Amino acid sequence: MENLKSAIRQFVGDRDWEQFHTPKNLAMALSVEVSEIMEHFQWLTPKQSRNLPPEKIEDVAEEIGDVMIYLVELSEELGIDPIMAATDKVRANSSKYPADLVRGKAAKYTEYRQGE
Amino acid sequence: MENLKSAIRQFVGDRDWEQFHTPKNLAMALSVEVSEIMEHFQWLTPKQSRNLPPEKIEDVAEEIGDVMIYLVELSEELGIDPIMAATDKVRANSSKYPADLVRGKAAKYTEYRQGE
Amino acid sequence: MENLKSAIRQFVGDRDWEQFHTPKNLAMALSVEVSEIMEHFQWLTPKQSRNLPPEKIEDVAEEIGDVMIYLVELSEELGIDPIMAATDKVRANSSKYPADLVRGKAAKYTEYRQGE
Amino acid sequence: MENLKSAIRQFVGDRDWEQFHTPKNLAMALSVEVSEIMEHFQWLTPKQSRNLPPEKIEDVAEEIGDVMIYLVELSEELGIDPIMAATDKVRANSSKYPADLVRGKAAKYTEYRQGE
Repeated sequence: MENLKSAIRQFVGDRDWEQFHTPKNLAMALSVEVSEIMEHFQWLTPKQSRNLPPEKIEDVAEEIGDVMIYLVELSEELGIDPIMAATDKVRANSSKYPADLVRGKAAKYTEYRQGE
Repeated sequence: MENLKSAIRQFVGDRDWEQFHTPKNLAMALSVEVSEIMEHFQWLTPKQSRNLPPEKIEDVAEEIGDVMIYLVELSEELGIDPIMAATDKVRANSSKYPADLVRGKAAKYTEYRQGE
Repeated sequence: MENLKSAIRQFVGDRDWEQFHTPKNLAMALSVEVSEIMEHFQWLTPKQSRNLPPEKIEDVAEEIGDVMIYLVELSEELGIDPIMAATDKVRANSSKYPADLVRGKAAKYTEYRQGE
Repeated sequence: MENLKSAIRQFVGDRDWEQFHTPKNLAMALSVEVSEIMEHFQWLTPKQSRNLPPEKIEDVAEEIGDVMIYLVELSEELGIDPIMAATDKVRANSSKYPADLVRGKAAKYTEYRQGE
């Protein structure tokens, strides 16, 4: 992760692109790249989405790379550690959705997760 | 990162939620969470977006945590390493956008990055 | 549609909000509102998504209203007629995807629509 | 609008694509197309976004057409009239954000609109 951070910092710095990379613009770019992941899945059945052919997985890997780049860059701009933020959130969700209450319940699931 | 992966795996497994977490659904959830980041920035000027008050940064950190969780989960489902995918992409972008050609050029920038 | 346009114009004007409603910000707001539609569908099976309970449909109708508002406003800002733009696009798509070639083909479908 | 609705219905019917056009998939497609609008604006300043060159406006018009198509189709599937939904929402927002309280207030604006 530290290597990735410095590679991104250097890439952006070498091109003098910090001026374009405001948090606002990075949030937009992040959203655009996530849509490029979603585009691969939009017409697939749930089952097909679990069985992507290898060349499709390579395409998705590239988009996941783009999303990760913007997520790391946005986090850096705001002084946030994305892995720590995720770890904290898993912990918070563990209390919020007690396993005993929500286990395997499709109907409940949506309700519980709604508006998260 | 490895700790985060196993925390997510356990969180999802304890709740028997793997059935809902198809790549298709995870891509949708990822997109929804990214929008919750974007919501914080939509009406701000670029400059305001660089100067978020601390309590706002905490809110954004939670959303970044959610995005990271779904990104890691989707990557796991597809057998992709998100940090490696990002590192590869930075390397590819370094060839694709030679620093000498694109340095600090706002007009060119959009053109170069369009359709990425 | 004309009534809707003037109601939006008056709503925004009365609040002196034109200053925030740049095309850039409207595009972001549009994306955020679309995610609020998507949030209702993210964990549903395709079949469940065809059978929403009435109270859910009311919720989605509100989000569709929001999306429509921002889409109309963005179009107005850019001098675009959204219904005419859609009509032109249906016509263009009719040539691009000849019915005989693409009829009912799931595998082909994705391929044809990809990158649209 | 009625002409557009029947053109879309015929386009989809002629290709036997109703099977792919579940509300869930239409919501995803809608989100993907909105991102293609957003992609045109992500690196622009607010001011640049108000002054798009004509050829860029044509590109955005095509994307607005795509968004409108999926919005109309999703609305049809759910029995929602998007123009009526928008008109109702403008009316609701007029009560929710009284002009006297929110006029031209940037700081307040974000706060008021947050979480809408």
